[in-house]
Amino acid sequence: MNFYQDILDGSHLAAGRLIKLIEDGDPNSYGALKKLYPHGGNAFIIGITGPPGAGKSTLFDRLIAEFRADGKKVAVLVFDPTSPLTGGAILGDRIRMNRHSSDSGVFIRSLATRGALGGISRAAKGATIVLDAMKHDVILIETAGLGQIGADISLLAHMTMVVCIPGMGDGMQAIKAGTLELADLYVVNKADLPGAEDVKHDLESMLKFKLASDTTRQPEIVLTSATQNRGVDDLRCAIVSFQQRIKGDPRLSERTRHQTTRYLEQLIKELAADCFWCNIRSSQAFLNALTAVETLQTDPYSAARDIVSRLLEGGLKNPDR
Amino acid sequence: MNFYQDILDGSHLAAGRLIKLIEDGDPNSYGALKKLYPHGGNAFIIGITGPPGAGKSTLFDRLIAEFRADGKKVAVLVFDPTSPLTGGAILGDRIRMNRHSSDSGVFIRSLATRGALGGISRAAKGATIVLDAMKHDVILIETAGLGQIGADISLLAHMTMVVCIPGMGDGMQAIKAGTLELADLYVVNKADLPGAEDVKHDLESMLKFKLASDTTRQPEIVLTSATQNRGVDDLRCAIVSFQQRIKGDPRLSERTRHQTTRYLEQLIKELAADCFWCNIRSSQAFLNALTAVETLQTDPYSAARDIVSRLLEGGLKNPDR
Repeated sequence: MNFYQDILDGSHLAAGRLIKLIEDGDPNSYGALKKLYPHGGNAFIIGITGPPGAGKSTLFDRLIAEFRADGKKVAVLVFDPTSPLTGGAILGDRIRMNRHSSDSGVFIRSLATRGALGGISRAAKGATIVLDAMKHDVILIETAGLGQIGADISLLAHMTMVVCIPGMGDGMQAIKAGTLELADLYVVNKADLPGAEDVKHDLESMLKFKLASDTTRQPEIVLTSATQNRGVDDLRCAIVSFQQRIKGDPRLSERTRHQTTRYLEQLIKELAADCFWCNIRSSQAFLNALTAVETLQTDPYSAARDIVSRLLEGGLKNPDR
Repeated sequence: MNFYQDILDGSHLAAGRLIKLIEDGDPNSYGALKKLYPHGGNAFIIGITGPPGAGKSTLFDRLIAEFRADGKKVAVLVFDPTSPLTGGAILGDRIRMNRHSSDSGVFIRSLATRGALGGISRAAKGATIVLDAMKHDVILIETAGLGQIGADISLLAHMTMVVCIPGMGDGMQAIKAGTLELADLYVVNKADLPGAEDVKHDLESMLKFKLASDTTRQPEIVLTSATQNRGVDDLRCAIVSFQQRIKGDPRLSERTRHQTTRYLEQLIKELAADCFWCNIRSSQAFLNALTAVETLQTDPYSAARDIVSRLLEGGLKNPDR
């Protein structure tokens, strides 16, 4: 795959093709990613999460316009892990953000969510490497409502935004509680609806209570009404101000180190697990274990443990030799 | 943990405690699972999936009553992977099925969905081992609307049921298409609403078209109206008839073998990956790789590949020696 130069030159087509290869786990993607990687390091990556129906797509549409007006190149990665059973959401998102599709400064793509969870965040990471190398100033990653994937995406992002709306009752309580560790900024969207100020006050008291011990980290709360295009400029300013604030902050480099470690851990574990599995899948030892488990002679846990410890008898090498 | 005898004696409390340990990935759970495993092999495990709002909880409530009237012990595992961001669903489910909670022949539990996807299906598998050893005749596993988890649960189940409802338009099309490979039986719930027969006809023509080459596998379609308690007995009969039909069918043992292989693969890969990671996480080699990736000198893919191949220099042992 030699189209990496096209990608560096800004070709959306070439970028889309590479991202597709990454999603598919195609080993051909690694060569290009390897070449693109050193060109990155500039994009500010924002993870955005919130429940379905919070108006995230409209908010994105407005936010993209704000960043564009400020001369920034913007990329958006949308993924909706709830398909196929909620159907249609991705299509809707695409349509809503469609007006930016002819703007070469805006790249929008939804990520397919086939394959395991690890595969999803690996695809997202690969895609950010591509988009970063293309000199996008801002990369927005949207995840719809899944706790774990939201948490995984926060491992890619410099900043995590959580979108709330008024009138969700207990659901909103759960969201607030579940995102407290993640959120760098809260958006109360649909602020034209009754109860928006209440959501804000609830968030404030929850943050005061929970983060009392950590005075350095107080997420800002911004009220927006995306459909009426109100508050979106405030939101952009809050994002930029967060970006300024963490620049040079040792906690940013801590966070980056933590993120890189976790990402390398994931890659190393996957490679190691695959090597292992390829080595035993056709062995007689594995077939015997399988039969023993099927006939209830051995439980699956003991069988797996046996096989792994037999292969690792004598231990693994010292990696520093 | 020596409470496995209590579990064999039917203690819901002890079973609940063990399932909690399994969810938490507590290594203490393995000892008990190991002892329980040989007592299983009797339960008929049914995975049920469908979009939020399809009335699955009410359907469960009615189906439990049908199985109870037939003298069967029933266990239900509910898990809603969309929490925390959709919040509240699990609580609602529990309330709806509450009337069975004083019946010692019914065990209902929701599974927490923290942790990675692998963790979820591992917890579900562990829980079925517990419930099977307790001599439940039927284990129902509910998953709400997530493609991948639905697919993972189908790897545990002897039978997969997909719940559809009228009036979902494109969403329903996506569900049908996405579940074609999984479904052993379709339920069209809320059949009192207009359009139920249309959903049934759509399913029939889709199945005829798609499965034309596989005449042996024609999922039955059952219409129910759970709130009005209509069609639920038909559903139970369809389940029992499926169970009879596959007994002794070589495709059942093929399916079981595939399921056991996949489950062992998952356990082996996890153990191997953890061993690997423990061996290198504190090494100088890993720290150097981390720094190289952070300073853009090496891309993460090459760094991970280097480390793994260095540790595997000389290759893994032959598992059959």
